[in-house]
Amino acid sequence: MSGHVIAFCGGVGGAKLAAGLARVLPSEDLTIVVNTGDDFVHLGLHISPDIDTVVYTLAGLSDRERGWGLARETWNFMASLRQLGAEAWFQLGDQDLAMHVERTRRLAAGETLSEVTAALSAALGLQAAITPMSDDPVRTIVRTAAGDLAFQQYFVAEQCRPIAEGVRFAGAAEASPSPGLRAALGRSDLAAVIICPSNPYLSIDPILAVPGVRAALKAVDAPIVAVSPIVGGRALKGPAAKLMTELGVTPGVAAVAEHYAGVLDGLVIDRADADAAPVLRGMGLQALATDAVMVSDDDRARLAGEVLAFALSLEGGSRLHRRAS
Amino acid sequence: MSGHVIAFCGGVGGAKLAAGLARVLPSEDLTIVVNTGDDFVHLGLHISPDIDTVVYTLAGLSDRERGWGLARETWNFMASLRQLGAEAWFQLGDQDLAMHVERTRRLAAGETLSEVTAALSAALGLQAAITPMSDDPVRTIVRTAAGDLAFQQYFVAEQCRPIAEGVRFAGAAEASPSPGLRAALGRSDLAAVIICPSNPYLSIDPILAVPGVRAALKAVDAPIVAVSPIVGGRALKGPAAKLMTELGVTPGVAAVAEHYAGVLDGLVIDRADADAAPVLRGMGLQALATDAVMVSDDDRARLAGEVLAFALSLEGGSRLHRRAS
Repeated sequence: MSGHVIAFCGGVGGAKLAAGLARVLPSEDLTIVVNTGDDFVHLGLHISPDIDTVVYTLAGLSDRERGWGLARETWNFMASLRQLGAEAWFQLGDQDLAMHVERTRRLAAGETLSEVTAALSAALGLQAAITPMSDDPVRTIVRTAAGDLAFQQYFVAEQCRPIAEGVRFAGAAEASPSPGLRAALGRSDLAAVIICPSNPYLSIDPILAVPGVRAALKAVDAPIVAVSPIVGGRALKGPAAKLMTELGVTPGVAAVAEHYAGVLDGLVIDRADADAAPVLRGMGLQALATDAVMVSDDDRARLAGEVLAFALSLEGGSRLHRRAS
Repeated sequence: MSGHVIAFCGGVGGAKLAAGLARVLPSEDLTIVVNTGDDFVHLGLHISPDIDTVVYTLAGLSDRERGWGLARETWNFMASLRQLGAEAWFQLGDQDLAMHVERTRRLAAGETLSEVTAALSAALGLQAAITPMSDDPVRTIVRTAAGDLAFQQYFVAEQCRPIAEGVRFAGAAEASPSPGLRAALGRSDLAAVIICPSNPYLSIDPILAVPGVRAALKAVDAPIVAVSPIVGGRALKGPAAKLMTELGVTPGVAAVAEHYAGVLDGLVIDRADADAAPVLRGMGLQALATDAVMVSDDDRARLAGEVLAFALSLEGGSRLHRRAS
């Protein structure tokens, strides 16, 4: 293929496909746009969980067993922190800490989150452009019966137990797309936009909530394809299915398609959901049913290749639908 | 004995005697006043090396082989920091980091360094009052042929290699003694002030440079006794002897006595320097020659007991000399 590809992604699941895309595309042809709605300041440190997950995953440093953080991590900082009676609900590994400390230092020195992310991912040998969705603070807030919860409070401290009533993105209205996102969306050679299999409500919606992003997606000629994070009615990881149920939506690929209505040209689903393809087509979407569960590195690259081929096959396809909505 | 004891101290050597004093005195009878001239902000973290050394030493957590930091420390944060290309000249252990992160968080939340120090030392089970000399920033600057060097730049990055021409304490003129130091100096039951075997120029002078401290020492009735950090013309640890030579002073107990002129009633020296006792007496000081090199915990407690007994024996002694100078 020729042309530039944009990937929108959140944490673990999205990062796997982003890593696959980074393996099959020349680095100059890929911009990975990462959710920063999960970012927060903890113990004075600026923590960007999704950026770190993407960076660690692409660098081959992430822990595949645990599903987050670094492989061969140690936890002596946490043990000492607990001894001091300090807040210890958020796990910070000894190696991982270096990322947070250096990011915080650079931000305090006046660098933007985009600049910090570029510098730190380059230091780890990454060539793909990884950019935060915005350099401005956007904070995901989950509205629950027990009140508003900051994302990490909901996700880590409360382990997604509170019943969600809605999600909002504090600061989004005042945020601008990052320079990397803006530049990628404006490229004349844009070939595809891939929405990785991340939580639509918690990981992709924050990106779409940045002013100008939805409008830019409607305006681009390139096909826009998502990979469903829901397989067989369940989330591959995380609280997506639980959240959908609480928000009154039946978890499934149709609900994912409905959620992205007006944005997508096509949806990649797992073979387990192949019988939903007609429903998706009825919604004006092209569908590709394949093995959408990534276990190995080869799975990631294989799925990335299939998603790209699918996207390119849609060129000039259902854009009318998207534009009209 | 009855009455309150104040100990002035810096890092490793001083902390050993402070630990001995903490072992032989009821906790309510001891205030340990620690140099903060070595404090600095590194990677955005507020680091108080001497306070940490004192806290770790009293808590029995310090590494005796290495001579600084925590025992059974790990260094995975540093390895990761180097991988990120970040500043890595100052060693921060994984466990030690918790202290810096939590201190920085508390300071940013508005606590004073005194409050932070009290909270963190209490969390480690310490009962003795450990107080910074001041809650205001005082920064030791070493004037060298190569220009002014911030203390950690001189001490760690340059490993004391530059030839020193002088030492100054930036911010000292605007600093106030910490509440703990002020309260201790004002106690009517003050029984002794002990200057621990720390570097007179780099660890004790910053404390004496805090406005009001020298005047308060002249005004107190209690005897003031120092323990020489120089034994047999050499520093037990660190750059004291090198620094004295560079400043034109012959390293020795007489030079220590001269340096503290007008402050001391007595000086505790090692048996190796016993023949200097007459010279000290000629300077108006009482001298105690004993085993001043502390290796074991018992050495610390034994020396602490001897120093206290010596100080109390001087009550009403050479105060005239001190006041007159």
